[in-house]
Amino acid sequence: MKLATARLAHRTAAVRVEGDTLVELPFSDVGALLATPGWQAAAGQDGPAQAADGVRFAPVVPAPSKVVCVGLNYRNHIQEMGRDLPEHPTLFSKFADCLVGATDDVVRPPETTEFDWEVELAAVIGPPDAAPVRRADEEAAAAAIAGFTILNDVTCRDWQFRTREWLQGKNWDSTTPLGPWLVTPDEVGSVRPALKVTCTVDGVVMQSDTTADLLFDPVDLVRYVSTMVRLNPGDVIATGTPGGVGHARKPPLYLAGGEVLVTEIEGIGRLKNHVVADVTA
Amino acid sequence: MKLATARLAHRTAAVRVEGDTLVELPFSDVGALLATPGWQAAAGQDGPAQAADGVRFAPVVPAPSKVVCVGLNYRNHIQEMGRDLPEHPTLFSKFADCLVGATDDVVRPPETTEFDWEVELAAVIGPPDAAPVRRADEEAAAAAIAGFTILNDVTCRDWQFRTREWLQGKNWDSTTPLGPWLVTPDEVGSVRPALKVTCTVDGVVMQSDTTADLLFDPVDLVRYVSTMVRLNPGDVIATGTPGGVGHARKPPLYLAGGEVLVTEIEGIGRLKNHVVADVTA
Repeated sequence: MKLATARLAHRTAAVRVEGDTLVELPFSDVGALLATPGWQAAAGQDGPAQAADGVRFAPVVPAPSKVVCVGLNYRNHIQEMGRDLPEHPTLFSKFADCLVGATDDVVRPPETTEFDWEVELAAVIGPPDAAPVRRADEEAAAAAIAGFTILNDVTCRDWQFRTREWLQGKNWDSTTPLGPWLVTPDEVGSVRPALKVTCTVDGVVMQSDTTADLLFDPVDLVRYVSTMVRLNPGDVIATGTPGGVGHARKPPLYLAGGEVLVTEIEGIGRLKNHVVADVTA
Repeated sequence: MKLATARLAHRTAAVRVEGDTLVELPFSDVGALLATPGWQAAAGQDGPAQAADGVRFAPVVPAPSKVVCVGLNYRNHIQEMGRDLPEHPTLFSKFADCLVGATDDVVRPPETTEFDWEVELAAVIGPPDAAPVRRADEEAAAAAIAGFTILNDVTCRDWQFRTREWLQGKNWDSTTPLGPWLVTPDEVGSVRPALKVTCTVDGVVMQSDTTADLLFDPVDLVRYVSTMVRLNPGDVIATGTPGGVGHARKPPLYLAGGEVLVTEIEGIGRLKNHVVADVTA
C-alpha cells in the first residue's frame, strides 16, 4: 500500500495511491491517518477517486512531532568522512518547518555557499494501535514501522561545522523534501529493506548505494530512539546517507541554485525538486 | 503580565496569573493564545477566576513546534567546560515530549548514571501579529519575544557524550520542566533582562549566576535562529546554563533519584520538581 498527503484545493487529504489513481481517505493527512487506531483498515477503505496526474504532494507527514536523523550510518560514508565505525548511532533532529513536498522547490538560502545533498531512506512510525512507542523491543520496533519514504537531508555544510553541533546546518526552512509517499513494509519486502538509493544533480549520479550497507537498520533505530523518548504516530526517522555527498568530493561540489535534484529509492519512488534562490531573503 | 497553562479537570486552559488568583482565558493553552493575532489584548480580557492554590501547571507551552537550546552561553560555564568563547551560538534541540510542568516529577531513566541539572532562562516567541518570524532584524527580534520562563535542561551526560552530537543526552521523555508561567518583558524590565538564576538540589545551591553573563542574549538568539528557520508563536529558545553543573564538579555529582530540584529565576518564579525513578521502565 502507498499512502500520500495530497494538496487539494484549500486543503490537504490523505490518499491511497493506486497506480495512476488517488483514492481519498477521510483524514487531513497521513499523520492524522497514522494517529488512528486500526489505521491499516482505515487506509484500505473506499473513497472518491481522482487521477494522480497534476496533483502535488505535501510532505508525506506534514508536521511530525519528531524528525530524528542519523549521521554516519553507511559504512562507506563513515569512511569518506574519515571516521571509525561507531558503537552508537549519532542522532540529530530537524524541525517540521524544514520539510517540503516531493516536487516542491528546495529553497537555497543566500547565507550558505555549501549547500549539499544527502539521499536517505526514512522510516515512518505508525503502530497498529496508534499508541506512542517507548522502549520498544525488537518485535515492537518492527511493528511500529508503518512504512518507508524518501528524505533528502539537504545541508548547509558551512553552518553545520560552525560549531560542534550539526543542528544549524540541518535546519533551514523549506530545504528537506519528504515523500512522495509512504510505502508499507510488505511492498519493499521487509522492515529492514535492502534497496538501491540514488541522488542525482542535473542528471549526474552523485550517490548510489544500497540500504543493505546501513550500520544501524530501521528496527535498530526505532529501538534506540524509543529508549529515550516516546515515538508518536507520524514521527520520522531518517536513516542517514551513503557516500557521494558534495562536501567529501575533491574538489568539493555544492548546489548553486537552478539545479534539478532527484532523490530516488528503488521500490519506493522518487523526489524531483528544483533548487531555487530564496526570494524572501 | 504572567500567563500559564493550568491543568483543569479533563482539560488545560490558558490563565492569567494575578497574585493568588487565576483568570481563565478562552484558549486551551498559552501556545494557542500566542498563535492569536492581538494576543496581548486577548490575554488581558476578563474571565472566570479561581484560586491558584492547588492548581497544577502544564509546561507553559505544552507542544511548541521548536525547543531550541543553546550550549555554552555563560562565560563562566564555557570556561568550566574547558572551551574558548565561541563566535557563534552552539544550538541543539529538544522534542516537546521531553517537557513537564512546574511541579511535575522529573523522570530519571534507569539507563543513565549521570543525570544532571541545568537552570536556563527561556524566551517564548509571540509577536503581536502572531505571524512566523524569519530573518528578524534587531527590532523584529525584540518584538517577537512574548516573554520569559524557566527551563531546567536536565541531561543524561553519559548519553550526551556517547557520540559527537548532544541530542541523545538532551531528549529523554518527561525530564525537562518548563514554567511555571510566561512573564512579559515589561515585568523583568527588558527583552535582555539581567536576572539572578539559581538551581538547588535538596536545598543545596548548585548554580547561581546572572543572565547578565550571557554571551548571546535573547534578542541575539531570536535573530540567529530565525535566519535559518521560521519561529512560530509558542516556540521556545532556552538560553543556556551557567557554571555549577554536576558533571563539572570534582568529583562529579549527579541526581540519583529522590531529590527535590528547585530551579529559580528572580522576577519570574520557580520550578520545584521531584526526581523520581521511571516506574514504566
